[in-house]
Formats: sequence, C-alpha cells, structure tokens
Amino acid sequence: MIQSISINEKTLTIHWQSGSDSTFHYIWLRDNCQSPKSLHPNGQRLLQTVDIPADIHPSSVQVIKEQSLEIVWVDGHQSSYSADWLYNHVYDMPLSGPNNEMQIQLWNCSVDINSLTFDYPEIISKERTLYDWLVAFCQYGVAFLKNVPTQLGAVENIVDQFGYIHETNFGRISDVKIVTNATNLTYTNDYLSPHTDNPYRDPAPTLMLLHCLSSDVEGGDSIIVDGFQVAEKLRQKNPKYFKLLASIPVNFCFSDPNVEISAEKTIIQVNRRDELTAVCFHNESLQPLRMDAELMGSFYDAYRTFFEMIMDVKNQVQFKLQPGQVYMVDNRRVLHGRTAFFNTDKRHLQGCYAGIDGLYSKLAVLKRHMIGT
Amino acid sequence: MIQSISINEKTLTIHWQSGSDSTFHYIWLRDNCQSPKSLHPNGQRLLQTVDIPADIHPSSVQVIKEQSLEIVWVDGHQSSYSADWLYNHVYDMPLSGPNNEMQIQLWNCSVDINSLTFDYPEIISKERTLYDWLVAFCQYGVAFLKNVPTQLGAVENIVDQFGYIHETNFGRISDVKIVTNATNLTYTNDYLSPHTDNPYRDPAPTLMLLHCLSSDVEGGDSIIVDGFQVAEKLRQKNPKYFKLLASIPVNFCFSDPNVEISAEKTIIQVNRRDELTAVCFHNESLQPLRMDAELMGSFYDAYRTFFEMIMDVKNQVQFKLQPGQVYMVDNRRVLHGRTAFFNTDKRHLQGCYAGIDGLYSKLAVLKRHMIGT
Repeated sequence: MIQSISINEKTLTIHWQSGSDSTFHYIWLRDNCQSPKSLHPNGQRLLQTVDIPADIHPSSVQVIKEQSLEIVWVDGHQSSYSADWLYNHVYDMPLSGPNNEMQIQLWNCSVDINSLTFDYPEIISKERTLYDWLVAFCQYGVAFLKNVPTQLGAVENIVDQFGYIHETNFGRISDVKIVTNATNLTYTNDYLSPHTDNPYRDPAPTLMLLHCLSSDVEGGDSIIVDGFQVAEKLRQKNPKYFKLLASIPVNFCFSDPNVEISAEKTIIQVNRRDELTAVCFHNESLQPLRMDAELMGSFYDAYRTFFEMIMDVKNQVQFKLQPGQVYMVDNRRVLHGRTAFFNTDKRHLQGCYAGIDGLYSKLAVLKRHMIGT
Repeated sequence: MIQSISINEKTLTIHWQSGSDSTFHYIWLRDNCQSPKSLHPNGQRLLQTVDIPADIHPSSVQVIKEQSLEIVWVDGHQSSYSADWLYNHVYDMPLSGPNNEMQIQLWNCSVDINSLTFDYPEIISKERTLYDWLVAFCQYGVAFLKNVPTQLGAVENIVDQFGYIHETNFGRISDVKIVTNATNLTYTNDYLSPHTDNPYRDPAPTLMLLHCLSSDVEGGDSIIVDGFQVAEKLRQKNPKYFKLLASIPVNFCFSDPNVEISAEKTIIQVNRRDELTAVCFHNESLQPLRMDAELMGSFYDAYRTFFEMIMDVKNQVQFKLQPGQVYMVDNRRVLHGRTAFFNTDKRHLQGCYAGIDGLYSKLAVLKRHMIGT
C-alpha cells in the first residue's frame, strides 16, 4: 500500500502504490498516536494534546513491509500506524456522504406510506426488522408502525426499542385529545397547519411519535410534509427567498400558566456545506418579526411562498391514523398537522418526544450485530 | 403617544410624540392582528399567514385618543393595536439584551464560589431562593447547592425543582465511581481535563449536575472553567485562532459495546451577532481532524492555544465537593473536570443531565409570581 514517504519540515507525505499522495502533519500524527498509552481501547484519547511540544518531529521514520508507518519521536515516544488506518484518515479529502442505504430520499404526495409501514410485533422480535424500520426512517424522516397495542403508554415502549424519551413540560407522554379551556391548540378540535413541534425550545426535540388509541371521528386526518423536499424546491425556485429564511432568525414562543419558553432560530438551517440540517416552522407560535424595515417585505414574501409550498397538496400526504398505528417524524425535517374534527370525544392519540442520538446509536449497534463484529 | 401617522404604499409610519418615527408593513400589521379571531389568549396565532392576500392594505386607518391604531382592511377585517404594543414591537430596532439581573458574568479563578452556593432546603421551600439560585446560574453558568440529602437519586429531586431530566445511554442518573473494565474514563480514577459533556450528541445535554455522596479520598478535586471567558480572551488575543475554532467543524465520537454516537460541530459557536452561544471541548473524544492540509497547522496552533488557556490555573476553579454538595453547569458554556484520586472506593458522585429550556421557563414563571401577574 505505502510505496514510499518524503520527509518535510512540519509534515510527511505518503506516496501510495495507487499513485496518489497524502500529507500528514507531525502534530496530527503525534496527536493521533494509536498506541495503548495514547488511546484507550474504547477510542478515547488518553494523551493531552496540549502536552505535545509545539515543534514535535520524528527522529526516525520507517515503513514496514508497505503496511505500517513506524515513528520514533524526538522525545523517545514511539508510534505505529497501519497503512489502512492512515488511508482511511487522509484528512484533506472531502468526507464521503452517508452510505447509500442511509441517504436522504426527498418525497412528496406520491410517496407510498405502506412501504414505510412496519409490523410492531416484528420490530420487537427481530433485530433485522427494527434495523430496516430505522433505516427507512432515516431516509424519509418519517416511518409508520401497525399492530401496536392500543394501551395507554404503549408509545413509550416503542421508544424503548431504540432510544430515550425527551421529557418536556408536556410530560413524558402527552394525551392529544380535547381538553376544556385548552391553553394549547393541540388539545382542541381545530385544524393544525403542518408544523415542526416545539420550535420555542433550544434544543427542540428531534423525534416526535404519535400513537392512535381511537379515531372514530369525522375529520382528524393526519398531514405530513417533507420539509427538506419543500426547502430544496424553494432553493431551486427562488434562491433569494431560501437565503432570507436561512439567514434571518425569528422568534418562537409558548406560554401558559405554568410555562414560558422562547427561542430564536432561522426557519431553514444549513451547515457550512450548505446542506439542510433543519427546518423549523410553526406559524402559531411565531412571534412578531423583527428585522431591518427594508428586509421585512421580502422576508414576508419568502415566508409566505414557503408556507404556500407547505400547504400545496402536491407536497402533502394525508391519512387517517387508525387505532394501533403509530407514526414517527424527524422533527428537524418533517412537518406534521391535522385536519379539524367533530364528535370530539372519540379521538385519542398519545404522543411523545425522543432523542435522535439514541436512534442513530441503536442503528450503528444493530449494524455491528448484523455484520458480526 | 401617537402624534400622527403617514400612509405609504406598502407601509404606514407612526410619528410618536417623543419625536421618533416607526414604519410598519401592512402585511406585518395584518399578520399580527391582536383581535380574538386572529390571536388565541395564549398568544398562539389563529390566522394562517399564508391566507393574507399579498396586496393587503387598509381601507381606513384611524388613531383613537393617541392610544390606539384602528385599521379596517379592504377585506372588511378589523384590527386594533394599542400604542404601547406597537411601541414595544417596533421591528427595526436592535432587541435590547437580557435585563441586568440575567446578564452573563465572565469569571476566572478569582470568582467566589460561596456567593454561588445556596441552601437546598431553602430552595425547595422558598420560591425567592430558587429564583436567586437560577439567576446566579444564568449569570455564571455554574451554581452550587449545599445540604442536599446524601441519598441515592437525590440529584433527580433537584432537577424536579426546575425542569426535566435529559436521559441518555448513561441512564436518567449515572453513578460516577470506579467501575472495573470501565468503557468510559469517567468511571476510572484518572485525571479528566476540563471538558463539556457528550459533545458527540447533537443536541448535547444543556445542563449537567453532580451530587456528592462520599468523597473521602486523596485527590478527586473538581475543576471548572468558564469556557466563555476563555473564548473571549482568545478572541481578543488572537482573532484568527478564534475564527478557526468557530468555523471549522470537528468530529466527536463515543462508542462502547452498546453505544455508538458521533456528531460534527465547531469548538466555539457564535450567533449571527457574533455572540458566544456554545463552547464544545472534549479532547478525549475528539476524532482525527479533517480539513484542508494548509489549514491543519494553524488549526492545531489555535486548538492548543485554547487548550493551554483552559489548563491555565488562572482560568480554573478547583474545589473538593463534599457529601451533600451539588454543582450544576451550563454544559454549553462551563467546562468541568477532576484531578486523579486514590483509595478508590470512597468516592461516589451521582450525575445527571437536564434541559435548560425547563430552567428558563421556571425562571420566567417564578418572575411572574414575584411581580404578581
């Protein structure tokens, strides 16, 4: 693998047999020493990076059988790096994206939600089915379960399969049904336009689950929208609007007799590679906008255009959740809402929030099991 | 208050008696209509912003007794805004920062931690003391309690006073003591350099509490560092280093037989006003850095300089937590660590994470009680 190396003042360069070259700084190599003194078997660094002398450099460098790089440093410490490890940690190449099976699939009204629906008893009995359900969820930002017991609290058992409840002032679980004198529109029979939940928290919950216990009412259909699909469409159609929503923060607030929370964030969020990381949309709790007066008109145009696209039935999936069904959304990506409903006491859902870190962790561990490591 | 108004094409301008002028877009006024049809008493917007006609404008505008603005819109809808409300929502003025009592106080080794120490029995019996403790916490990013019962699980009762546990793979509560074959350095007797917890999560827990049950050991002192103070010092001393740490994301990872989590973020985080929002530092779980090779040398210089400042005793407070004492840190701001310790079975702390949204909400509600609203 390693054909040869060149020694430079602050770096060394590896010439790979494939013909390419990779440069490694001495400070980086010393900091990432793979010896048991420097690195715990669990991958935690035992070495205090700050203790490395600023002018660290090798007193000798050797390549053993093209397979490993052996360095003795001027302070006597020895490090050894396999060619494979170095090749996998070449640092000036862009990271490849998630593997194909985890890649984001944008969707609109034509998505087949049956293909995203899994059998709950199978999820809890077969690791492979749990894995497939979670992979579908990561791709689509939404996934469904059927045959969930219609018992109070069952939604918490679902979260137990892959992670942890994110408790809020609404409790570990909340009952979504009519409440007299509700201080939150969720607990009325009103129409709720598609939104992400709890934008007034920072951090907001990353996963939201809804479990249907009964739904024998007229109306009360669920509506979901892929916020990433709509945001990408906005970026194509009107990059200026996209940029306004991605750069000017707005304020969200919720308050009732026991709670008062607010948070400032942008409606569209991107990372430094301009990839979408979150959409945050909740017209009900959006506070009066503040910005330079000359931006206000354009910002409203952008906001209303985004809202129109969210309301466009071509971007929505509408369905009636039946008793025993659950849907889970990535609350950073997928908006959810519901139509108004009547004969009000017959609709009862239970919802909860959970953390996506536990879900990703579970997926990684299931994958280890499946590939037998 | 309102002296007069001018009507423009898309806006109206209020001339205040104080002599200043404020411009309001019609779309903004209509969207923020204060009538019961448009706004629920809980502050949630009942109106779908998207339904407002793009060319909305008044058919008549009237000022009543200098105290309120009355608009009849072309579609017949009527809105009324008090002069006070309008004055408080003028949108092109910078928002004033938090009121004085909540303003961030940067600190170093000379901070008096006694002044940040409150009596637990008083916290649970007096709203005012709970309020003062939480205010001190918001200012300093750290606060202490004494006279907490030395009972297993007591740390959870503290969180109950103001918010909600943030559960992770470490459980609702975790026992910080020696574990044979620990997969995490926390559960050894090793020195831990100051760090923020769980940077490999996104979102990471915002609050961390540690409760001492026993500490009759040699060593095992706690160390805390105000990450915001150190970051501001770095910004002054070397703006280039600050910018590198604030713009190039790094990867953190934790894995054990049951868990595998990673997250990419910058070590220093700022908002669009360049105010610090978070510091994220954990040398043990920092993964091999990836970036353009020409940045690597400077990035290491920046990282090591920041690390040196964190390790500078002038920036650290070291103390020995005694049985019945608790400290809580804002995990987005304050780093914590500990010295190594010996005769190992005598040190037992219990820790947990919680969400800062609940804390802010509790503060706001306590304030309402105190001012009698």
